[in-house]
Parts: sequence; structure tokens; C-alpha cells
Amino acid sequence: MATALEQLVIGIDIGGTGTKFGIVDRDGNVLFSSEISTKKHPTVESFIDDLYIALSELIERSGGRGRIKGIGVGAPNGNYYTGTIEYAPNLPWKGIIPLAELLEAKFKLPVTLTNDANAAAIGEMMYGAAKGMRDFIMITLGTGVGSGIVANGQLIYGHDGFAGELGHTIVIPDGRYHKGTGKKGPLEAYASATGVRLTAIEILEKTDAPSLLRNVPEDELDSKAVYEAAIQGDKVALDIFEFTGKILGLSLANAIMFSSPEAIILFGGLTKAGDFILKPTKQHMEENLIQVFQNKVKILVSHLKESDAAILGASALSWEK
Amino acid sequence: MATALEQLVIGIDIGGTGTKFGIVDRDGNVLFSSEISTKKHPTVESFIDDLYIALSELIERSGGRGRIKGIGVGAPNGNYYTGTIEYAPNLPWKGIIPLAELLEAKFKLPVTLTNDANAAAIGEMMYGAAKGMRDFIMITLGTGVGSGIVANGQLIYGHDGFAGELGHTIVIPDGRYHKGTGKKGPLEAYASATGVRLTAIEILEKTDAPSLLRNVPEDELDSKAVYEAAIQGDKVALDIFEFTGKILGLSLANAIMFSSPEAIILFGGLTKAGDFILKPTKQHMEENLIQVFQNKVKILVSHLKESDAAILGASALSWEK
Repeated sequence: MATALEQLVIGIDIGGTGTKFGIVDRDGNVLFSSEISTKKHPTVESFIDDLYIALSELIERSGGRGRIKGIGVGAPNGNYYTGTIEYAPNLPWKGIIPLAELLEAKFKLPVTLTNDANAAAIGEMMYGAAKGMRDFIMITLGTGVGSGIVANGQLIYGHDGFAGELGHTIVIPDGRYHKGTGKKGPLEAYASATGVRLTAIEILEKTDAPSLLRNVPEDELDSKAVYEAAIQGDKVALDIFEFTGKILGLSLANAIMFSSPEAIILFGGLTKAGDFILKPTKQHMEENLIQVFQNKVKILVSHLKESDAAILGASALSWEK
Repeated sequence: MATALEQLVIGIDIGGTGTKFGIVDRDGNVLFSSEISTKKHPTVESFIDDLYIALSELIERSGGRGRIKGIGVGAPNGNYYTGTIEYAPNLPWKGIIPLAELLEAKFKLPVTLTNDANAAAIGEMMYGAAKGMRDFIMITLGTGVGSGIVANGQLIYGHDGFAGELGHTIVIPDGRYHKGTGKKGPLEAYASATGVRLTAIEILEKTDAPSLLRNVPEDELDSKAVYEAAIQGDKVALDIFEFTGKILGLSLANAIMFSSPEAIILFGGLTKAGDFILKPTKQHMEENLIQVFQNKVKILVSHLKESDAAILGASALSWEK
């Protein structure tokens, strides 16, 4: 139970649609949380104003500003070194946004910022499946594919603060076009929500095979719909997961041979398909590993509550500082 | 100038054919060096006996055992954590060899061991092109393709000590067969000495284009022969470097998006082809990078004297300890 003296931190997870935030104690309990829209704020200043109002209420409820140690923020294209968000394609604010500076000025609290997948990795290391691990890779399979790499017990930010963009590594040279970046064949073009939809459309168009998925409208063809068909034994649905797992597994093998982690932690919508996606992923991962890495690296699914995970990850940044 | 009190270290670089070793001072001067055969020693014990005899002479010449701080060893499949060489395909000794332990027993000196590419990375960080860098990737383009990754100023050994196997990452799925590992499409199948030879043979067979390389016996078709043809404007030779650079560049882009280094340091035979290989490599690297990484990461060629570099790298391990 929280005593009057126990310190708390604020975790803020900025997504393209909404921004979640909460007050977190050292054990990883989200005491109070709420959400505001991201995309309805054309300027970052109006966003911060609304965030301040919403958060001030939570701060009051948790015992006042005196208990708050700091603020951790996870944001797409967030740079740990500079505290800026740089050219985030799915946020309404363009260019380089000095978010940490703006938040510090408003809240008068120290702010630590990084990208959302790095925040998730720190969250897993503090509260989740990677507790006690010194070498692991966190991969978020959501609207996009993000990753955070921990080696020697430290998050790898790299020279400029942007390390861990596994989703943009090219896995199929001259492969599927990625609209956001203009590149061909990156992992994100296959293993993201959009990627799974495109695979479904391609496989459905290529054959006349009967499938429950033919009754699903194209914009609802997500990994959940494919999963629901798969549990009924739908062959096309199984093929979609097999194809996705083949590419994801290859990509995981390459990541393993690069940084030799103890485990890979997967998080996000696609993981809800369970063994339908995990089995082919693991099989193709092992097939592409050289002997010295085979049957060593665990694939784990994050067990943090999805609604809390983003806030927890962001808040963990602040404890780590 | 070395004073009576200055400490020295021994660097040993074990290769498939020969083993180089030398006595090194703190400034990276190789004071004395020599070489013995690796492959003529069917047992590791006879190898260590001969190494001891040859090194004892160098130790005497450099002022005696009292000045020697320790021994650093670079070896294929060398494991930093355990001091063992594990299943090295190109060494005469099979299985797991407790090399550090055997050397310590013989020499009565502390021994540090890692794989050859990691040793090279530490050598570059102490004496070479990566001096002062905290985030870089070292890639050795020799008989094989090795790599050493430094992040946050530390070499990444990974959970089991085998991190940095960039040469085995799959760059062309279902691509060229790699005899040593049985995998299809790893970087090493293209950017190693053998890889360049296979590319040359493939391109020469595919077309009737006239080429100086048609006069070169197949087993002499190495990057040196291709370079010599290229400087005379040989179109096929240029195509070979373009093809190799395309694959190497893609692989470098993926490595950059993973760990965001300040620079990539290249070392080994292929780099002697200069701009013939560096230009296409850099071009394809930039093409595959997402915007946030473009025109930031230097490609540098190691400027350590090749004859000394392996010994220096191995010896640097011992200073680092």
C-alpha cells in the first residue's frame, strides 16, 4: 500500500490516435489513468494544455505534486538524447518537436522521452517477461512494428538515439512496398496489422480456395479476423499466419545472430493469434539460425495487461533515470 | 620508448591456416611478432606446445615475463564468457576447446579470448579508426565475413557470448547456398572471398561479354583479380563489385537500423578494391535506409597495418580486461 512518502511517476504513451497516461508506483501498479485524443490537437501546444488539465486531476487524486518524481514519455520517433519527436509520420505535429522541453516547462518536473518500443522494452525489463534479463529484444507487432534492444543490461539507443528500428530492416529485397517510407520489403510491410491485411488480400486474390475470410469486408481483415477463421480450421487463414511467420521468423533469426539475446519478447495484436502465428515464427526462426544459436532463444509473449503496458513502459523510463 | 617498468601484453590471432602473435605496448606498437601454422597441429596440445616455444623467445627479447600483463586471443567461434572455442568449422580441433584454460595453465598468465572480429573491433576502438567512438560496427571481409558490434562503448557479446554474427544473417531469402552452414542467402555467401569468386563465376557463365577475367583460372578469381580487371575498365569486373556492393549495402543498412552506429569500419581483402566496392556499397546502403538514418553513418576502411591488426586486436582485449 502506498504510504504518504512513497514516490510515484507519470507514464505517458503518445500514439497516433490517442494518448494514454497514468500515475504509477514503484511496483508497477497503475494507480490512476486516463486518455485524451492525440489527433484532435493540430498543435502540440493545445495538446499539452489538455494533457496538463487531465493529468493535474490524477496528480491531485494521488496525493499531490510533491509525490511525483518525474515523467516518462513513449512516443513514435522519440529521441532519448534530445527529448524531441522527429518527423513522426503518424502524429499531427510535423518536423522536430521539443516535447520533453515543452512538458518540463509546463509541469515543472523532469521528463524522459524515448520511442514507444524502447519504452515497452524498459517496461518489460522492470515489470514484465524480461525481468532480470540483461540481453533481450522487445518487438511490438501493432499498427507498425517497433523494437527495443537491450544488451549488457542497457537499452541500445545508438549514436543518434534511433537504434532498434527492426521494423524497417529489409527482409525481402525488392519485396512489398511500404507506403510510409517508400522502401521495399521491410518487416513492417508484412508483420504489422496492415501487413497481415495485405497478405490476406493477396492470398485471397491469388486463389479460388473457399474461405470464411471472403465474407469479411477488406477493412476488417485484421489478425483478429484471420485468427477467428483459423480456429475454425480455415486453410487460407492458416496460410496467412504461415506466410507471416515465415517472414517474422527469418527476421528474428537475423536479430538473434546480431545481438544474441536470451529471449525475444513479443507484444501487440498479432500475438493474440497464439500458436497460429508463434509456431511458424519459431519454426522459421530456428531454420535460419546457425547451429550455435539453435534451440537457445526463447520467444515469449508479453504478459503485461495491454491497457497498462504502454503507460508502465513509459513510466519505467522515469524510474530508470 | 619502453622503460623497464612499462607493461606489455601478448596478442594471439588464431586463423584457420596460421596463428600470428606478438608483444604489444600500450601505444599499440607491435614490438616483436612471429607466426606458426595452425593447421599442421592436429591436437590443440601440440599447438600450444609449439606456441609456447615460439612465444617464450619473444618474451625473452622483450625483457622477460615480469613485464607481461596478460594474453589476449582472437579465434574463430571464440566465446568471451567461457574462454572456449566452440565448433569452429575451419580449425583442426573439433568440439569445444577450453583454450583460455589450457593457455593459462601453460603460460601462468591471465588469458582473455573472443572471436576474431570482436578482437578486431576492440583493436579499432583502442588504436584505429574507431578511436573515441562509443557506437560502431566492425566488419571483417576476409575468407569469411565477421563482425563486432560496440554500443554504449561496450562490445556486445550477447547472452551466450556469440553476438555479432552479421555474416550469417540472411540477406537474400532462399539465396545462395552457404556450404559451411547449410543456410541459404547469408551475407557471407556473397561478401566473403569465396562469395566474390562465386559471383564472378556466375556472371561470367551467364553472359558472353568479353572480360579479362576469362583468362584468370577459377581458383585465382579473387577480389584482387577482379580489382585488377576493374582498373582497366573491365565491365564484368565492375558488375561483380556492383552486385557485391548491392548486397553488402543492404546488409549494412539493416545493421544500421538495428543499432544506429556512428560508423561502420570495414577491414579485409575486399576493401582493397577501394571505391569499386565502396561506392556501390554506400549507394545501396543509403537507398535502403529510412530517412532518419540517411547521410549520417560513415563507412570507414580500417587503417591499421594488416600484418599487425589481428595481433593488435587480440592484445587490446588484454588491456581492456
